Amino acid sequence: MSGYISDAVIRRLPIYYRHLRELEREDVKQISSQELGDRMQMTPSQIRQDINSFGGAGRQGYGYQVQELKQHIREIMGLDQEHRMVIIGAGRMGQAVANYASFSREGFRTLAMFDVDGEKVRQEPGMIPVYYASEMEERIRSLKPQIAVLAIPAEEAQKTLDRVYACGIRAVWNFAPVDLAYEKDMVVVNLHLSDSLHTLSYLMHQKNG
Amino acid sequence: MSGYISDAVIRRLPIYYRHLRELEREDVKQISSQELGDRMQMTPSQIRQDINSFGGAGRQGYGYQVQELKQHIREIMGLDQEHRMVIIGAGRMGQAVANYASFSREGFRTLAMFDVDGEKVRQEPGMIPVYYASEMEERIRSLKPQIAVLAIPAEEAQKTLDRVYACGIRAVWNFAPVDLAYEKDMVVVNLHLSDSLHTLSYLMHQKNG
Repeated sequence: MSGYISDAVIRRLPIYYRHLRELEREDVKQISSQELGDRMQMTPSQIRQDINSFGGAGRQGYGYQVQELKQHIREIMGLDQEHRMVIIGAGRMGQAVANYASFSREGFRTLAMFDVDGEKVRQEPGMIPVYYASEMEERIRSLKPQIAVLAIPAEEAQKTLDRVYACGIRAVWNFAPVDLAYEKDMVVVNLHLSDSLHTLSYLMHQKNG
Repeated sequence: MSGYISDAVIRRLPIYYRHLRELEREDVKQISSQELGDRMQMTPSQIRQDINSFGGAGRQGYGYQVQELKQHIREIMGLDQEHRMVIIGAGRMGQAVANYASFSREGFRTLAMFDVDGEKVRQEPGMIPVYYASEMEERIRSLKPQIAVLAIPAEEAQKTLDRVYACGIRAVWNFAPVDLAYEKDMVVVNLHLSDSLHTLSYLMHQKNG
């Protein structure tokens, strides 16, 4: 079992995973910390330290087995298991998440969506059903998803998180542009589009300034 | 002028901005590093160090003026200026970005979208026009956007980045799930949905495991 993993390494884990999958597609069998560092714009010693911290094994002079390391990361990220999701908010962002092809390939299955807008509510064969937000508690209790995706306005987010918590959901992926309060037995990951665009804006102005 | 700002602080700048805007809405005039730290789940000394590094001014015993600090961050992020964007890819993700209300409020104006799919191409009054991807060069040269948003599949991303670079665009916001190669005079910020979802998955399994 691996020891303490820092927040920075946790943030980099999916990036390792992505690069290892690319290497696998390129039919690369093993890779040195130097080569992996070049791809990821990191130093070889940082790579070795990271991989060591999450329990990946390399061999002196040989580097890392691509498939083995990818599989190890896949397991510690829980990607070898199915995850059941519901999406609260069936607007453009909710629809984009629901239809993001790679999620279902990776075992993230969207069972249902919810919206307050009756015009978005519909159940059609072969499509992810959209139910009224008022049915959320009842549907969640029967569908038993592990993850709720919040794709709703900021002002709705906190009370919606509280509602899904009350139904037993302990993992939230939050697209609403607000940081939420939550109990210690819950995990919440924010994806704030604005933060990312503001970072781009900052970097543009540093370049020009 | 502020000195060297670390990557970690750059990542936190938009978060400071978001919290300061919330404080302003709550009509809070000044805030101590302790109080701001409590909100942002950081230590007071980390807050002071961050703000000092990007040239924000606090006063001993008084803390920070909310509006002044917000305005300072707004300026260093270039949010006091208009940014002209085009979106390559008019699928659900491209549409979600195009219609994200807060972007236009903050001066990020989407001028046009492009798609290879003729069914998505349309120009209607009051809507953001969608043009054929083949018209990209011509349209970009006349519209003169600063930012290109890539909302396209991974395998199209590199050549599309090269195309927009050739038309003079030096800032790319990349939603395609791949890390791209680019010239030194370009800035690229990635928003990889999968990385964020994988982080959630990792945290869920650490909690349970």
